[in-house]
Amino acid sequence: MNSSPAQLLSAQNVNQLLDSVQAFLFDCDGVIWKGDKLIDGVPETLHMLRSKGKKLVFVTNNSTKSRSQYANKFLSLGISVTEDEIFSSSFAAAMYLQLINFPQHKKVYVIGEQGILEELQLAGFTALGGPEDGKKTAQLKSNCLFEHDKSVGAVVVGLDQYVNYYKLQYGTLCIRENPGCLFIATNRDAVGHMTDLQEWPGAGCMVAAICGSTQKEPIVVGKPSNFLMEFLLKKFDVSCSKMCMVGDRLDTDILFGQNAGCRTLLVLSGVTTESVLQDPSNKTQPEYYTSKVSDMFDLLRP
Amino acid sequence: MNSSPAQLLSAQNVNQLLDSVQAFLFDCDGVIWKGDKLIDGVPETLHMLRSKGKKLVFVTNNSTKSRSQYANKFLSLGISVTEDEIFSSSFAAAMYLQLINFPQHKKVYVIGEQGILEELQLAGFTALGGPEDGKKTAQLKSNCLFEHDKSVGAVVVGLDQYVNYYKLQYGTLCIRENPGCLFIATNRDAVGHMTDLQEWPGAGCMVAAICGSTQKEPIVVGKPSNFLMEFLLKKFDVSCSKMCMVGDRLDTDILFGQNAGCRTLLVLSGVTTESVLQDPSNKTQPEYYTSKVSDMFDLLRP
Repeated sequence: MNSSPAQLLSAQNVNQLLDSVQAFLFDCDGVIWKGDKLIDGVPETLHMLRSKGKKLVFVTNNSTKSRSQYANKFLSLGISVTEDEIFSSSFAAAMYLQLINFPQHKKVYVIGEQGILEELQLAGFTALGGPEDGKKTAQLKSNCLFEHDKSVGAVVVGLDQYVNYYKLQYGTLCIRENPGCLFIATNRDAVGHMTDLQEWPGAGCMVAAICGSTQKEPIVVGKPSNFLMEFLLKKFDVSCSKMCMVGDRLDTDILFGQNAGCRTLLVLSGVTTESVLQDPSNKTQPEYYTSKVSDMFDLLRP
Repeated sequence: MNSSPAQLLSAQNVNQLLDSVQAFLFDCDGVIWKGDKLIDGVPETLHMLRSKGKKLVFVTNNSTKSRSQYANKFLSLGISVTEDEIFSSSFAAAMYLQLINFPQHKKVYVIGEQGILEELQLAGFTALGGPEDGKKTAQLKSNCLFEHDKSVGAVVVGLDQYVNYYKLQYGTLCIRENPGCLFIATNRDAVGHMTDLQEWPGAGCMVAAICGSTQKEPIVVGKPSNFLMEFLLKKFDVSCSKMCMVGDRLDTDILFGQNAGCRTLLVLSGVTTESVLQDPSNKTQPEYYTSKVSDMFDLLRP
């Protein structure tokens, strides 16, 4: 939607952006926090935006937590956010299954963590796998048959720190052998900031593993999929052009915003460096970029 | 090399094939055995071929064993094969590093099993990871730094039944952060016959996981790569047109043979069914196909 080079956010253009936007969609990792550490100036900035009547939405591809777990994480960092303001890819997976009327008698196998299981259960689905299968091992010996539940109709794959061969085999068998079984990816981020010091393999790692063994491509429900944006638009009564997506990733956050016709602001506090942004090989240009979210607050001060 | 439809092996054409071929390259899983079970008639057929003066070579993408472990497996199934006749993808990985003069002071990190470690060590390289890291866990908490060896210059990825997040993180960090670090895949088979009753995720699963987290593509050393064939041609004094590749997979075995200009024989005793072979969407046609290796023996009998 925006092919001209990104503009640096400045005291000159920040007012125009704030005046024309009714809702800010924030990515979390690398924008609000890094690992368990709040990024400087975030509380003041969110408070300033709320005081100007802006709607705030927190959209995260990290599927390890449910919305209620995210609300607790915000609270522990001193920020008050309601569950209704949070859209995690774990929640998106559950909403996707609800939207397609996934049959209640079918089960969902999870390669992922607690957040996915919780959201699936809250939405009324029967979920298998997840953390519970983290200690299981697959017995590879003659005459051994690995049993899997034939009533699994969808495999949801997200970030899984306890991924193992058992889960990979279980998910692979369901997708290869259960007729019509869906392969749903919460997201495909290559790496994430699970601690504040370095990057770690993201859901893109586990999702690719299942692509490798099934030779199928997943339905992606997190950023930058259209599914999540359409869902957000239904929930909030704001037109795309009055929404601004704020994120640290070009290939998920900024693309997600641009695909929907939203305004976009890249922050350099996460995975994207200025040299990556400015590199001629980079085809995704946000409308604005700045070092961190609180620049919005600082630039507004007289 | 061969775009006409595959011919069924018959009493009419089997003599022509045997007379014109000096060396038979056999895939193992699905051709010689399924899991731990020998496929019917294999010993008699190999004996018949040897008695006719044919060279036999066993080429397997399964990297979990070293050549010496494979020789023992053949022996346990009642077939006498020397290490020199065995070309496993574990051995291919070590030979690749030798061929490119991989520096002896650099280390190799392994996401895979004992076979890769053994072949690397036999070739004089220092290998880390593998089974030893199968019980390690990655600590994801604030201020935690996952340490990795900066002298790792290559990550070799093969089938790994003990794959975990620790290994995925280790391999990913080496490839993303150690300058010039190579990403080598023993092979990319989606599934394999690790037991005789069903298919299991193959090296293609673990390799794809690392592609997902590093966003890089590997150097593949097993079938159907040209590297392995060139290596075989150097070892054996037989021209390609006098070699016949016998395998159960179109995308590895048959393609591997065809890429090099070898004769090809598909056996239906492994992953490929006749309907897959005959499907209009299948573009890889072997020269001949038959139900199993011993058909060569049976068709020759008066």
